[in-house]
Amino acid sequence: MRAHTPFVGLVPAVLTPFDAGGALNLSAVGPQAERLARDGVAGVFVGGTTGEFSSLTQGERLALAERWAAVVKGSPTRLVVHVGANCLADAKQLAAQADALGADAISAVAPSYFKPKSVDVLVQWCAELAAAAPNTPFYFYDIPVLTGVALPMVDFLDQAAERVPTLRGVKFTNPDLMTFQRLLRAGGGRFDVLFGMDEQLLTAVVLGAQGAVGSGYNFAAPLYNRLLAAARANDFATARAEQYRGVEVVAVLMRYGYLAAAKELLRLRGLDLGSVRLPHVPLTPDQAASLRRDLESLSAL
Amino acid sequence: MRAHTPFVGLVPAVLTPFDAGGALNLSAVGPQAERLARDGVAGVFVGGTTGEFSSLTQGERLALAERWAAVVKGSPTRLVVHVGANCLADAKQLAAQADALGADAISAVAPSYFKPKSVDVLVQWCAELAAAAPNTPFYFYDIPVLTGVALPMVDFLDQAAERVPTLRGVKFTNPDLMTFQRLLRAGGGRFDVLFGMDEQLLTAVVLGAQGAVGSGYNFAAPLYNRLLAAARANDFATARAEQYRGVEVVAVLMRYGYLAAAKELLRLRGLDLGSVRLPHVPLTPDQAASLRRDLESLSAL
Amino acid sequence: MRAHTPFVGLVPAVLTPFDAGGALNLSAVGPQAERLARDGVAGVFVGGTTGEFSSLTQGERLALAERWAAVVKGSPTRLVVHVGANCLADAKQLAAQADALGADAISAVAPSYFKPKSVDVLVQWCAELAAAAPNTPFYFYDIPVLTGVALPMVDFLDQAAERVPTLRGVKFTNPDLMTFQRLLRAGGGRFDVLFGMDEQLLTAVVLGAQGAVGSGYNFAAPLYNRLLAAARANDFATARAEQYRGVEVVAVLMRYGYLAAAKELLRLRGLDLGSVRLPHVPLTPDQAASLRRDLESLSAL
Amino acid sequence: MRAHTPFVGLVPAVLTPFDAGGALNLSAVGPQAERLARDGVAGVFVGGTTGEFSSLTQGERLALAERWAAVVKGSPTRLVVHVGANCLADAKQLAAQADALGADAISAVAPSYFKPKSVDVLVQWCAELAAAAPNTPFYFYDIPVLTGVALPMVDFLDQAAERVPTLRGVKFTNPDLMTFQRLLRAGGGRFDVLFGMDEQLLTAVVLGAQGAVGSGYNFAAPLYNRLLAAARANDFATARAEQYRGVEVVAVLMRYGYLAAAKELLRLRGLDLGSVRLPHVPLTPDQAASLRRDLESLSAL
Repeated sequence: MRAHTPFVGLVPAVLTPFDAGGALNLSAVGPQAERLARDGVAGVFVGGTTGEFSSLTQGERLALAERWAAVVKGSPTRLVVHVGANCLADAKQLAAQADALGADAISAVAPSYFKPKSVDVLVQWCAELAAAAPNTPFYFYDIPVLTGVALPMVDFLDQAAERVPTLRGVKFTNPDLMTFQRLLRAGGGRFDVLFGMDEQLLTAVVLGAQGAVGSGYNFAAPLYNRLLAAARANDFATARAEQYRGVEVVAVLMRYGYLAAAKELLRLRGLDLGSVRLPHVPLTPDQAASLRRDLESLSAL
Repeated sequence: MRAHTPFVGLVPAVLTPFDAGGALNLSAVGPQAERLARDGVAGVFVGGTTGEFSSLTQGERLALAERWAAVVKGSPTRLVVHVGANCLADAKQLAAQADALGADAISAVAPSYFKPKSVDVLVQWCAELAAAAPNTPFYFYDIPVLTGVALPMVDFLDQAAERVPTLRGVKFTNPDLMTFQRLLRAGGGRFDVLFGMDEQLLTAVVLGAQGAVGSGYNFAAPLYNRLLAAARANDFATARAEQYRGVEVVAVLMRYGYLAAAKELLRLRGLDLGSVRLPHVPLTPDQAASLRRDLESLSAL
Repeated sequence: MRAHTPFVGLVPAVLTPFDAGGALNLSAVGPQAERLARDGVAGVFVGGTTGEFSSLTQGERLALAERWAAVVKGSPTRLVVHVGANCLADAKQLAAQADALGADAISAVAPSYFKPKSVDVLVQWCAELAAAAPNTPFYFYDIPVLTGVALPMVDFLDQAAERVPTLRGVKFTNPDLMTFQRLLRAGGGRFDVLFGMDEQLLTAVVLGAQGAVGSGYNFAAPLYNRLLAAARANDFATARAEQYRGVEVVAVLMRYGYLAAAKELLRLRGLDLGSVRLPHVPLTPDQAASLRRDLESLSAL
Repeated sequence: MRAHTPFVGLVPAVLTPFDAGGALNLSAVGPQAERLARDGVAGVFVGGTTGEFSSLTQGERLALAERWAAVVKGSPTRLVVHVGANCLADAKQLAAQADALGADAISAVAPSYFKPKSVDVLVQWCAELAAAAPNTPFYFYDIPVLTGVALPMVDFLDQAAERVPTLRGVKFTNPDLMTFQRLLRAGGGRFDVLFGMDEQLLTAVVLGAQGAVGSGYNFAAPLYNRLLAAARANDFATARAEQYRGVEVVAVLMRYGYLAAAKELLRLRGLDLGSVRLPHVPLTPDQAASLRRDLESLSAL
C-alpha cells in the first residue's frame, strides 16, 4: 500500500457538474478544483453522496474519477474516490481504476438495496472490494440515514482490522458521537476517522477530529477553515459563531432541496455546475430567485 | 403501446443463474425456463429483487434480459423485465432494450439511495423512465421494505394515470391489504395489480387478485397452481392447506438465508443456478446438508 | 383457570365514552352494549387501543372495566379487558380486577416507552402480569406499529407456552400474515389467534381465523357479520364486496382522524360517545359536516 | 410564573430507589441527594427516563416528587419534576403537584403510545399540561429515540412561544446538533436548552450549552464537573480526556443493561438504590461480579 497520512482539514464531497442538458460536464471539474484549492481544501471526495454517485452510470463514474485524477495531479489536493455501489463488481472496477490512477484513498458505502445482515458480512464485502485496490488506503463510509445499514462501527473496525489489509479508517456520517469518540481510539488510535457532518464540524473537532468530509466545504470552505483556525487557537467563541453561520446556510438550502440549492448557490458565485438529477429535483426559477434573496439576508459566507 | 391483457396466474421473479465462479450463467436460462413452463407459470419477472438485480452490472442486466427474451420467444411465457435502478439513465437504457426486445411489460422499483420525497417526484421519475419504452406496459414496483420508499399508492395511481401513458399497473410487494383493495378498484378497475408476497398469495386471491409475482414460484409453482385451482373451485380448505405448505418452505429457507437456500433447493431438484452474490451469503456445506434434511421433513412441494 | 373456548365472531374494541366535558361517561356503556348486542357481536374488548386506554387514568380504567362487567353480566356478550400498561404494577392491578370481575379474558400490549429487548424479557413480563389473574385466560396483544415492539410471535408462543400458564392466545394486529398462519398452528393449534385488522378481516378468515377484534366492529358489525356469513357459505364474491365497503368507510374516517371520526359516525347514528382525548384531536364543526357528507355518499353500512 | 434563571451545570436525571422487594424506597432519597450535592450538581431531574417514570404508578410518582421536594428544600439543589405521561390528566396532576411543591421547573416528554401528529397538536398538548402549573417554568423534553415522536423542535419553539406562557426551554435528548444550535438561538436566545446526552456533553458545551441533564451525572458528576471546568479554562485536551472517561463507563454499563448496571455501580460505591423494574432486567450475580471487574479496569471515575 502506498504511503498514507491521515487527512487533516477539509475534504469537500464534491458536487458533480452537469451541463444544461443534464449530461456529465467534465469541463467544469478544472474550475471547480481551482476554486476549492483557493479555498484551502486538503482534498476532494469524488463521486460520493453529494456527488450523486447513485444517479450516475458506471461509465460516468469512471470518467469523473479519471478527470479528477488528471486535474489534481501534481497539486497538493489529495484525491479520494468513492467506489461504493450496490453491485460489488461495479465497486471493484471503480476501486481498481482508483488504484491505477494513484488515488490517495478510496471509500465505499455499504450496499443498501440488499443490506449486509451482520458486521461479518460487511467486513467480507469490504475485504473483497478493497482487494481490488491493493495499493490504496480504504475508508469505510458509514451513513446509516441513507443506506439503512446501521451496524456497530467499533465492532467493524475490530473485525476488519485483520481482514482488510488496506483499511485505514472510516468516513463517519453519523450523529452518534459516543461511537465517534471510540473510533478515534480504536486499535490504539490507528484509524483515521473523517467526520462527515459539516453542520456540526465543531463538535467533532472538540472531540479530536483532524479531517472532515462534507458537502458544505464545496461552498463554505473559507468559513470552515476559519472555524478550524479558531479552534486551534482555542478561540471557541469564534469557532462557534462560524459554525452557526454554516448552519444558517444549510437551513436555507434545505428549504429548497439541499443539493439543487447548493448548486444554485455556487452558480450565483460564478461556478456553474448545472443542476441535479432525479430523484433530486431542480429549482424552479421562482425558487432560485427566492433562494437568492434568502442567501443575501445571511451574514457573508 | 402494444396490446396488453392483465396477467393471470403465476409469474415467478426468476432467480439469476451464476456459475461456480459467480459469473452470470446464461446457459442455465433455457433449462430454467423449460422447468417453469412445465410448472405452469404465466410469465417470468426477470432481474427483479429475487434476481439480485442490484448485484448485477448493467451489462449483465442487459445480457440477462436479452437471453430471457430469446428463450421465451414464441412460447406462451410472458416476459416482464425489471428495469428499476438508482440511476435513471441506467433504468432508461434497460427500458429501451425491453421495448426493443418486445417484452410484455417492464417494471421498476423506486430509486432508494436517494428517495423520492413525494408522490409527485415519483411520478416524474416513472414518466421519464416509462417514456423510454413507449410501446411497453409499465408496472410500478412497490416494495417499501427494501427501498424505504413508502409513498401512498392510491395517490400514485391517481397522479400517474395521466402522466405515465404506458402505466398499466403495480407490482405490490407490501402487506398493506387495505391499500391493495383500493388499488384493485382504482381508476374504475383499470389497473393490473400484481401481488408480490407468495407466502400469503391466498389473501390476495380472496380479495380479487388475478396475477402474482413472487420468488416462491421458482420452486413451488405447482403448489401455488393447486392453490389457485382450489380457490377457483371455492375449495378454500384446500387452498389454505396449500398456502401453509408454501409457508413451511419459506420458513425453512429463511433460516438459512432465503435466496441462497432457494437456489440450493432447486439444485437438489436438478436445476443448478449456482449461488448468490454478496451481500447475500452462500450456504456452507454444513448448512446445505442441514437444509436438505429440513426440506425432506416437509410435506412434498 | 376458568373454562374457555376460542372466540368466534366479532369482538369490537369498544370506544370509550366521554361526556361533553371530556370526562368518562359510564352512563353510555349500557346503550353502547345494547347496540352492539343487537349488531351481533361475540364479545367486547374494553380499554384497548380504540378505547384510548393510554389516555385514561388508572382509576378510569378500573371504573370502565367494572362498568362493562356489570353491563354484560348474564348476557352472551363475552368480556375481554385490556390490562396492558407501561407500569407493570398498574397492569397487574387491572388484571387482578378483571380476574375478580370474572372477565372472560385479559389481554395486554407490550410496554412501549421502555421496550422489552428480547422474547425472553417479554415472556417474563407476561408471566408476572398474567399471574395476577390466575383464573383468567391471557392473550398477548401484538401491535408493533404502535408499541415499536416487533418481536417474533412464533418464538413468543413457543417460550410463553410453558412459562405463562394462563396463556391462551394472541390478539394479532400485525399485517404479517405469514406469521399469522404459523401462529394458528403453533403448539398444534392450541392457541386462539384473534385478528386485529378489520379492514382486511377477510384475509384472516380465508387463512382460518375464527375470531376478530377490531375498531370497525363498533359501527360496522352487521357488515362484517354479512362478510363472515358469506365466507362460511363459500360466497367469496359477496364477502369481498362487504370487505371493500368496510375499507371505504375506514378510508373516509382516516381523512378526519380515525377515532374522532368513528365517534362522530356513531353520534350520527344515535349513540353519543363524546369525542376523543389528546393527542387525538376532536373534529371541528366543519370537519364533522364534511364527514357527514362523505359518509352519505358511501353505500350503506 | 416564579423567577427563573437558566440552569448552569449538571442536573442528574436521578435514578429512582427501590428496596430489595422492588418497592419504592423513599428513605434512600436523602442519602442520594447528599451524595449528589457533594458531587456538585446544580439540580435534580426527578422521575424522568433514568428514573423509570413509566414503570412507576401515579401514586409512586407523586410520592417521589414530594420526597425530593422535601429533601432539597432550602438547599441550593434545584428541583425539576418530570411530569410527562401518556394520559394528559395524569400529567396535569403531576404538574399541579409540582407547582404546589414549588418545583423550579417541570418537564414532559410527548405522549408516545398515541403520538401527536403535528407540531400543532404537540403544542396544544403542552399548553394544556403547562396550564396546570401556572407558576412553574415548563421544559419540553425531546427524546425521539424513546417516544418515536420526531417533530421539528425549531418549529415547536416558534409555535409554543405564544401558546405556552410558562415555556422556558427544552431538554434535548437528541443527537441532531444542527437543531441544537438553532434552538440555542431561537426567539433571540430566550430559551434554555438543556442537553441530554452525557456521553457527548462536551459537544454541546462547545456549541454553547450551559446546562445539562443526564443519567451519567448520577455517578460521574465530578468527572463532568472537571470537564466543564476545563472547557471554561479553554483546556479542551483535558475536557476531551474527561469526556472519553465518561464514554468508557457508559460502554461498560451498556454491555450489562445500562440502568441496572448504573445502579450496581452506585451500590459498589456505597449508595444502594436497589435494582430496576421490568422491562429493564436486573443483573444476575454473575453479571454483577463481571461488571465490578470491568469497572475496576477503567481509569478512576
